[in-house]
Amino acid sequence: MTIYRAPVDDMMFLFEKLKNNSHYNSLEKYKEVNSDLAKDILEQAAKLTENLILPLAKVGDETPSKLENGVVRTPPGYKEVYKKFIDDGWVSLSCDPEYGGQGMPKTISSFFDEMLSAASLSFKLYSELSIGAYNCIHRHGSDSIKKKFLPNMVKGTWSGTMCLTEPVCGTDLGLLKTKAVEQSDGTYKLTGQKIFITSGDHDLTENIIHLVLARAPDSPSGTKGISLFLVPKIQVKEDGSLGARNGVSTNSIESKMGIRGSATCVLNFDDAVGYMIGPKNKGLNSMFTMMNLERIVVGLQGLGLSEIAYQNALNYSKERKQGKSNTSKTKNGADLIIDHADIRRSLLNMKSIIEGERALGFWLAQQTEVSLHHKDNRIKEEASDLVSLMTPVVKSLFTDMGMEITSDAMQIFGGYGYTKDQGIEQLYRDNRITPIYEGTNSVQAIDLVFRKLVNKNGDVINKYINLIKKDLKINEEKIKPFIKKLDQNIEILTKFSDWIKEKMKSSKDDVSAACNDYLKVLGLVATAHAWVKVLEVSYKDYENNKKFYEEKIQTANFFFNRVLPKAENYYLTATSGSKYIMDFKFN
Amino acid sequence: MTIYRAPVDDMMFLFEKLKNNSHYNSLEKYKEVNSDLAKDILEQAAKLTENLILPLAKVGDETPSKLENGVVRTPPGYKEVYKKFIDDGWVSLSCDPEYGGQGMPKTISSFFDEMLSAASLSFKLYSELSIGAYNCIHRHGSDSIKKKFLPNMVKGTWSGTMCLTEPVCGTDLGLLKTKAVEQSDGTYKLTGQKIFITSGDHDLTENIIHLVLARAPDSPSGTKGISLFLVPKIQVKEDGSLGARNGVSTNSIESKMGIRGSATCVLNFDDAVGYMIGPKNKGLNSMFTMMNLERIVVGLQGLGLSEIAYQNALNYSKERKQGKSNTSKTKNGADLIIDHADIRRSLLNMKSIIEGERALGFWLAQQTEVSLHHKDNRIKEEASDLVSLMTPVVKSLFTDMGMEITSDAMQIFGGYGYTKDQGIEQLYRDNRITPIYEGTNSVQAIDLVFRKLVNKNGDVINKYINLIKKDLKINEEKIKPFIKKLDQNIEILTKFSDWIKEKMKSSKDDVSAACNDYLKVLGLVATAHAWVKVLEVSYKDYENNKKFYEEKIQTANFFFNRVLPKAENYYLTATSGSKYIMDFKFN
Repeated sequence: MTIYRAPVDDMMFLFEKLKNNSHYNSLEKYKEVNSDLAKDILEQAAKLTENLILPLAKVGDETPSKLENGVVRTPPGYKEVYKKFIDDGWVSLSCDPEYGGQGMPKTISSFFDEMLSAASLSFKLYSELSIGAYNCIHRHGSDSIKKKFLPNMVKGTWSGTMCLTEPVCGTDLGLLKTKAVEQSDGTYKLTGQKIFITSGDHDLTENIIHLVLARAPDSPSGTKGISLFLVPKIQVKEDGSLGARNGVSTNSIESKMGIRGSATCVLNFDDAVGYMIGPKNKGLNSMFTMMNLERIVVGLQGLGLSEIAYQNALNYSKERKQGKSNTSKTKNGADLIIDHADIRRSLLNMKSIIEGERALGFWLAQQTEVSLHHKDNRIKEEASDLVSLMTPVVKSLFTDMGMEITSDAMQIFGGYGYTKDQGIEQLYRDNRITPIYEGTNSVQAIDLVFRKLVNKNGDVINKYINLIKKDLKINEEKIKPFIKKLDQNIEILTKFSDWIKEKMKSSKDDVSAACNDYLKVLGLVATAHAWVKVLEVSYKDYENNKKFYEEKIQTANFFFNRVLPKAENYYLTATSGSKYIMDFKFN
Repeated sequence: MTIYRAPVDDMMFLFEKLKNNSHYNSLEKYKEVNSDLAKDILEQAAKLTENLILPLAKVGDETPSKLENGVVRTPPGYKEVYKKFIDDGWVSLSCDPEYGGQGMPKTISSFFDEMLSAASLSFKLYSELSIGAYNCIHRHGSDSIKKKFLPNMVKGTWSGTMCLTEPVCGTDLGLLKTKAVEQSDGTYKLTGQKIFITSGDHDLTENIIHLVLARAPDSPSGTKGISLFLVPKIQVKEDGSLGARNGVSTNSIESKMGIRGSATCVLNFDDAVGYMIGPKNKGLNSMFTMMNLERIVVGLQGLGLSEIAYQNALNYSKERKQGKSNTSKTKNGADLIIDHADIRRSLLNMKSIIEGERALGFWLAQQTEVSLHHKDNRIKEEASDLVSLMTPVVKSLFTDMGMEITSDAMQIFGGYGYTKDQGIEQLYRDNRITPIYEGTNSVQAIDLVFRKLVNKNGDVINKYINLIKKDLKINEEKIKPFIKKLDQNIEILTKFSDWIKEKMKSSKDDVSAACNDYLKVLGLVATAHAWVKVLEVSYKDYENNKKFYEEKIQTANFFFNRVLPKAENYYLTATSGSKYIMDFKFN
């Protein structure tokens, strides 16, 4: 069984001390969300995740969701905890008060996302997609649709899904075949098969609201002919009560490497009644509202799983004795493995990545709120550009690092780490979906270079780099060595960006073969930037909390010495071009 | 279900064209092992692994070995295939003809190790440890012990184990507690518990010969009081027939992340009769004969699993259509994903590592044979030093790369890769034990810097570097750019080695915190060295097999452009020292 203690102190440090984004601070909406409220919420969230949700992780892995006579049964205990979860209002944390939500900002809800992911990603997924679907309906649905569906989704008595993938189309949605035929009453009837539908069916809620991409018979082929539909599992009458079963059935559920508590379904739609959401043939745009926010949350999943893996590895290192350290004073027997330099290196590597990511995630949460709610359109758009640039980065970087960290944590457990008893290998298996779903990490990298980087005449990356440079104008002498290292890497990022822009004209394959590396460089620079903001506070506020800040400074030190310098190698190897790759004849 | 085609062509290329090690070629023992014989064996081995053993992988994962009423049952089908396996003499491939073996060199048997690992690592493990135990008994056992036990082990009707680990000691064998009390007849009675015993019990053979590390009551504590004992599961009478059950029982078997077909046992020894092997209190030395050869085989496991992962990813890339490539001519629909630059980059990355490793493994197999069988003691010892230097490198590098490759292969399958249907995620889970067992990869790195590097006044690494430099004196102009790159990295390796030697005097923690990185640098240089040998033949023999050699040259090109340059970053970050790591106060 794993242990988990929600890192409320670090979260509160960020919330209180890094809340220096003036645009965020000027948001009327969140004026009353002060530190006391944040702390209260995070402490309640910590109790919930540590005590009630954590035990569900192992249960879900050992007793996966299963399909019985056409009905999906969640693992033992899920139902009871889910009831408490919605009764206490956790689904509604970030939702609009108009529909019964608590209206909390992402600067709080993303910490909750991290905690939930750490405790049990499988359990989390049952409400996560509800929020995704909620966001999409909230933004693109008509008033009557919103009134009819949102209150129960916010309450959590109904859940939601995103139905995109089909057997022949995952990454490439242009190929999708599900048909939506308009009826005389303005509704549609949908027919087709969707696969890999997270929480596609389950027994936790009274109804499930599917958001389905489909093609009308008169729509063009490719991505320009895709519309978005709301398809309830059980039809909803005018008065809001449940009616007849809709034409949606569960064909099968996947047997997976991890997140086995989560039901990943193949859904059949047979003349299922649906309602169009947003304009016809613009379904992909509407869906991407949801997808983009969701991609950031997937990044936070990687962060949460990294945190719990780190905590367990640290804990084990303090219990397990093996061998003697280089400066051992032990006469008989062995030292704790945490006294060994190599184990310490591995633990600090995890910690320096995790805390840098958390700071970056917090920065992004602020930007996201500004992009959604700022009054000034120019400021809103600037923030939106930054969010759009960093979304693929956070999704990929946090989940890739999640693999590195959960794997390194296993390694610290040695042979025990490979057995099911310790729970550590499950973290690794659970996290392994995160670099795949919501667009594989390579798809994120392609999105970054071919969409985000060329947006607005390619000026977005320069704006971001200038923003960092502005943040580096700090007078504290002790930060100078850190800034110098970051400067060198900004230089690398700049050269790499220029190279990408140049190759975009002459050889797109060069860009494609370099995009994963480019994303990593940008991710490392962004994390270092977040670290500098943490360092700035750490030195300024040093005397008020020496122990805490000393730890921050040393952890940053590790990041700047051993993690950040990886950027250069990504740049040098990636810019070796692609001719020799494209010319290769695979047997 | 995965596909697998044993890479006999590449193996035969190495066997025929890289057999230019004059010391190896002068071994009397293998004079008759010519290309025809090698090809015949490898083709038979290919048939066996592709047709009979490959299907056992999935079966073993879905129906793991289980303990029923004190007896371990292997997965369905294992028994039948094992019978054919031993009837056809595969266990005995590399064993001494004196005991019924076929006496084939490691230049052939290590290819067979790779194939078996690719097809089903779980199945392989039932005979792998038998060979380990055979090697140990063959080297250290008395004549009467050898006569009594080896013939049936060579035949495969008896199997073997290595019993080292106990609940409190894995890496640190000095802590071991199993007791061995001498009896009046010169035998010992062993009492204690051993854990993580691969093939500790099963139903494939009539008897199991355990090699057990234990401590006599009058032996000192620590590693200097450990002796090695042979403990049969069923006692063997003087005439060689089976007698009474010995005091060895299976307490439980582990539920593991992967290699679920393999039975990993907790064994209880209760006054079990054992025979001392080798001198008293020198058990660790004797066991290390077995361990070192075994560590190389673990490296080959990583290579085998990499190969099958690559083959499946390549195959899928040629079937799956998604999105349009940068130079697409497709009007409607999508291109094969193998047309996408990023997928090609990923596939070539795998291929360039795999083929480089295979060449390095072949080089090491030659060196191993020279180290075991050369008449000239000086030559024998020189080879032995090289084998000893490269053993931790091959074990760690091949298994770490195995993780990278099996993971990248999954990534190419997208969501399908995460489901159990494709079999690709199993390769990843199965391979995940290889960086852990037979000494974690960090333990290998510690062994490399603290033992191997300081051997013979630290001259071993210089000898190795000089050997490479000698091999780089090639006149072919086209190889020059490759050699230049390797030279730069030899420079890095040299500086890194000097740094390690220096720090060994002043700060061992600096060395410990750098050892994993050092191993990686040495591994990359060693693989590049192997590639240069392949390139030399490829250019010389070019006209005779253009297609094959062109592919080799292009694959090498990828390795030198995108893989080898990683060495520099390992060097730069690792030499940042350890003070900030050792000073850190973990909460």
